[in-house]
Parts: sequence; structure tokens; C-alpha cells
Amino acid sequence: MMAEKIADRPLLFALPGNEDFASRLASALEAETGELETRSFPDGETYLRLATSPAGRNVAIVCTLDRPDPKFLPLVFAASAARQVGARRVGLIAPYLCYLRQDKSFQPGEVVSSATFARALSREIDWLATVDPHLHRYGSLDAVYTIPSSVIASAPAIAEWIRHMVERPLLIGPDMESEQWVSIVAKLVDAPYRVLRKERFGDRDVRISLPDMDEWRDRTPVLVDDIVSSAQTMIEAARRLRSIGLPPPVCVAVHALFAEEGFATLRKNAARIATTNTVAHLSNAIDISSSLAAGARSLLHSR
Amino acid sequence: MMAEKIADRPLLFALPGNEDFASRLASALEAETGELETRSFPDGETYLRLATSPAGRNVAIVCTLDRPDPKFLPLVFAASAARQVGARRVGLIAPYLCYLRQDKSFQPGEVVSSATFARALSREIDWLATVDPHLHRYGSLDAVYTIPSSVIASAPAIAEWIRHMVERPLLIGPDMESEQWVSIVAKLVDAPYRVLRKERFGDRDVRISLPDMDEWRDRTPVLVDDIVSSAQTMIEAARRLRSIGLPPPVCVAVHALFAEEGFATLRKNAARIATTNTVAHLSNAIDISSSLAAGARSLLHSR
Repeated sequence: MMAEKIADRPLLFALPGNEDFASRLASALEAETGELETRSFPDGETYLRLATSPAGRNVAIVCTLDRPDPKFLPLVFAASAARQVGARRVGLIAPYLCYLRQDKSFQPGEVVSSATFARALSREIDWLATVDPHLHRYGSLDAVYTIPSSVIASAPAIAEWIRHMVERPLLIGPDMESEQWVSIVAKLVDAPYRVLRKERFGDRDVRISLPDMDEWRDRTPVLVDDIVSSAQTMIEAARRLRSIGLPPPVCVAVHALFAEEGFATLRKNAARIATTNTVAHLSNAIDISSSLAAGARSLLHSR
Repeated sequence: MMAEKIADRPLLFALPGNEDFASRLASALEAETGELETRSFPDGETYLRLATSPAGRNVAIVCTLDRPDPKFLPLVFAASAARQVGARRVGLIAPYLCYLRQDKSFQPGEVVSSATFARALSREIDWLATVDPHLHRYGSLDAVYTIPSSVIASAPAIAEWIRHMVERPLLIGPDMESEQWVSIVAKLVDAPYRVLRKERFGDRDVRISLPDMDEWRDRTPVLVDDIVSSAQTMIEAARRLRSIGLPPPVCVAVHALFAEEGFATLRKNAARIATTNTVAHLSNAIDISSSLAAGARSLLHSR
């Protein structure tokens, strides 16, 4: 009886670097973590083996998709290896989902990588679960992905962290686009919020203008954004806040992509940096795994 | 009239690192080279734009596929960008074609990456041209690829190089599998050949046994193989030849994958190393582009 019950439990396979997150998910989902072996051949090709058989079982591959290009084929191989031996359904739990930013051709001939990536990924997996995808001009993930998906909001976990860690917070969105996250977090925290205005002059060149902040001088500024990569937006926002005499802000982000010098520079301008663990990083302080598990549950257990 | 003629010419787009090879192909094919822009965003995603419009034209993406994992999505993006604006047919010229080695599951759960990769690639392109794919247990490329393909033999170009560069050659294949290349090259050179026996104990551990070589002591040994990656097979073969008093061999390979220390160690054991330019490398001495152009011509020009 016990053996049958175990074989009925869904099986999670973690691509390299996702083992810890997959263990947390497995506990929350009453799932088993399977053993995935992978290595590079001397010629740079990837070897991959599912050492736990997923035959007849529901499977989720766990793979966050920051720096996505080298991760795509290993992910395709993991899904294919599961199907080869007769897995029932093969989903992807990607705490961070990539390629959502380029959603149109701004110049003639530019690839719409969000649509192209969604199409390529959707051919390999049956369903998708992720945290706060950077939807930009898309109304929902279904506008770009045709497979079933579950989108998990990080706002409750972020709000809980702020409530416990920050006294008298003033939530601040560094640009108009961040208003969608900041307004929800502010409501959950029961704190006021303001949104700054950003102009972008290049991948790494942004400028921020401030509204009147005088009435909030007794509050702790908390910058909230979904993605920090070059971190230029948050760095510039933190500098502008400090330039009018506010204290160094607490900086909170969902996805800690942090390229190059971004983290070091932001650190010098922030009281504290806190991110969720969708992308493993030194700044991770907010565990999002139980929220993601709750969102993925019905997709993972469905027949 | 001139404008129409140019618009009828096929268009080649080179992924980074393939520009020189693409120019050579374009000259041989009466094709135009289009301008492809690509760069990395700070978050590690790829930006790609076809700055020359392929609308209504036949297109080939030129991308050799050594160290393939990070190259796959950019290749998919290039093909997709061409289709977005209405390219007629989109092919791939891959001087080196990857993922042909794992053609079965040796252990339960191992991905058959050759079949999985072929399936993923075939969804993105209309046809494929390559040089001496490492077919291993497959009888032909059609056993794994369903799209039309053209397979170009490097033997004539290699034979021509040996005829010009090596006096009284004795061609030697380092293992049984190499007999297919060595026998053809030997016939074209009009030289004798022998094949050694190899046993493999790991990715980087191979041992070679020698036949009786006494009658060939006045010949220059020329080792010929299709792929050198760790180069352990060729290094071990060269050492064994030298251990019985033969001079350092000339080492010829089709695909110069050369991982890590392989090239440096082989150099110490070889009179000379010569490879074709399917993979750009210091050892490239044999230009295969006109052979590849001849093989790709009908696929590129077809309607």
C-alpha cells in the first residue's frame, strides 16, 4: 500500500542550482524530489539522466530562468527524458520566468522574443507555474502562453516581511510600471505609497523625478520593484530620495537578477536589500516557496 | 532590374563568430550577407535584430554548433525574426552539428539528446546543411532529422591538403569508428592506411593498441579523425606511434572542438595539427566553405 501511495505522488526534478527550492516545494506539495544527474561532456554538450523513474507519474521540472540561454536545452532534455519513460504530465515550475520584456518590434527586424520563447517552451511542457511575471504590455500570461499556467503573486509574502521588519514604512515605486506591485503591497501592509517617474536613456542609464515628499519625512522609505538587474532604476531612486534628506531606503524586489556591479552600488545607497528567493542571491530574505507551491498544486496533481 | 536581381538572391545571416565563414559561403553561393545585430541585456537575455529585411527571400542562418547550449535560443530567435517579416524559407548552415553522440539510453532515464535536439531544431528551420555529422550508430542524418538536409564530406578537401603538404603519407585512423573517414581520404590521396584499436575507460581516459607498423617506417604518419574534443584519442594514438620509434605524426581532424588542455598536449606530440574551419580554431588549415556552399546550394535556392 505504501509503495502505491509513493508512486502516486508527483515527482519534482531540480535542474542544477534549484535543489534547495525544489525541496521546499516538495515538502509543501506532498511531492517527491527525484534524482536528476547532469554534467558537461568535454565538448560542451550536456548529459542528463533522470535517476528516479517518472513512469506513469505527474512531473514538474523546477528551473528558475534567470540568465536563460544556457538553461533552455537542459530544461528541454529533462522534459524529454521524463516523456521518454512515460511520465503522465510534465510541467515547469519557474520561480522566475524570462523573456517577457521584448513584447514587440520597436525597430524593423527585432525578434519578439517573448512570443518566440513562449512558443518554443510551450512545445516542451504541459503547464507552467511562476511568480509575478514581468508582463509589461501583456494583460496576462495567457496573452503569450497557450499552455495552462498559474501565476503566483509575491505581494502577500513581501507585505508580511515589511510588516515585521520595517517601522512606519512609506512604500515607493521607482517608476509608473511598479505601481501595480506597490499599490497592492501598500494595501496589505496598510501603509501609504508614492510612485516616482522614470525616464530611460539606455540599458544602464535611467533618471528619476520625485514628487513632494515633505509630509512623509518621519517614515522609512521602502522601494519596491519586481525586477532588479542592472539595478540602475533602484539605485537612482535611492539616490534621489537621499538627495532630499530622506534616510537610506529599504529596497525590496521580487526577482534578484542583479547584474555586475548593481548589487554593490545599491548596497551603498540602501539601509537594507531584501528579495524573494525566486532567483538565488545573497539578498534573499523572503521565502516564496510555499506561495508557489499553493499556486502549482492543482496543475501538479491534475490527471 | 538590378534591384530585383539583388532581392532574388538568398540572404545569409551569421550568428556571432560565424561572420567570416558566412562571407566565404556568400561569395561561393552568389548570396548576400544580411546584417544581424545581437547583444546581451544586463539580465543575460539576448537581443536580436535582422537589420537587413529578409521579406520574401530565401534565408540561411549560419551558425556552427560547438558548445551548443547558449547558442540555441539565439538561433531560434534569428529564424523567428526572419519568419516574422515574411522570409520565404529559413535554413540552417551549421558547419559543425552538435548532439549526435547520445543516440540511445545506456542507463535508464538518460535523455536521447540526439533525437530531442533534432526534434527541437527541426521545428525552427526548414532545412539543414552540415559537414560530416558524427553519425555514430545512425545510418544517415535522415534517421534522426525529418527536415531536408545536405551532408557535405570533408574528405576531398582534407585529401587535397594532405597531397600538397605531406610527403609519402601513411594514413592512420585512431579507432575503428574513424575507418569510414580514413579509408576515403586514403583512396583520394592514393596512400595506404591502417586503423588502430581504442578502448575507452571514461570521457578523458582512452587506451590504444597498435598493429605491426614495421613495413611503414619510411612513411609520414597522418592521424585522421572527425572530432577532436578532449583530444585524448589522438594524443594517445600519437604517443603510441612515437613509442615504437615512428616520427611525430601529422594530426588532421574535421571538427576542432578542442576542450581545455587537449590542444596544448596534442601539439607536443604532433609534427603538425591541421583542421577544417567548421569550428574556428588556431589549428584551422583546410577551408571547407566552398564544399559546404556546393552542398547547400540547391536547398538555399529552392522555392
